Amino acid sequence: MIEHTVSFTLKHPAGSAEEKDFIESLRDITNMPGVQNFRINRQVSSKGPFAFQISMWFDTQAELDAYDASKAHVDYVHERWIPEVTEWQTLDFVEI
Amino acid sequence: MIEHTVSFTLKHPAGSAEEKDFIESLRDITNMPGVQNFRINRQVSSKGPFAFQISMWFDTQAELDAYDASKAHVDYVHERWIPEVTEWQTLDFVEI
Repeated sequence: MIEHTVSFTLKHPAGSAEEKDFIESLRDITNMPGVQNFRINRQVSSKGPFAFQISMWFDTQAELDAYDASKAHVDYVHERWIPEVTEWQTLDFVEI
Repeated sequence: MIEHTVSFTLKHPAGSAEEKDFIESLRDITNMPGVQNFRINRQVSSKGPFAFQISMWFDTQAELDAYDASKAHVDYVHERWIPEVTEWQTLDFVEI
């Protein structure tokens, strides 16, 4: 199993309708092939950057790669992510 | 529930005995009060910084704060973390 995470900050003001709409749009990722245990988190440590994080699990790196290259994912990145996210960081984890 | 994560990179060479010893030393955190579902992960995305991550869960922010302030944790930070870790990032997550 591999955990795929992306921490990010939105250009929208905290508590705005635009912020809420973006967060809700992320839930469509739940339905993409291979995605398991999808979560949307608020980042709450004052020590760390980023306001939000998404976390999802895949059985294999190949399934994560297929998700990353899928039309649905690429379209989402262009239509919503790039216009509305100001900074982000991708980290993927495999338990030791 | 709150997930406490710290991503980090060691000063030790990959695959060295010193790296292995540090990773094993982290398993003591499992026994600290309040810590649940402790995991040690390798960070495997080429898009992201950091070589490793630890993840643990607490029932409440108060339990996380108590862990952070505990003598066992403070001693560990001074004796192992600061001497052996070159960079790190703390991110804590609460599901929306």
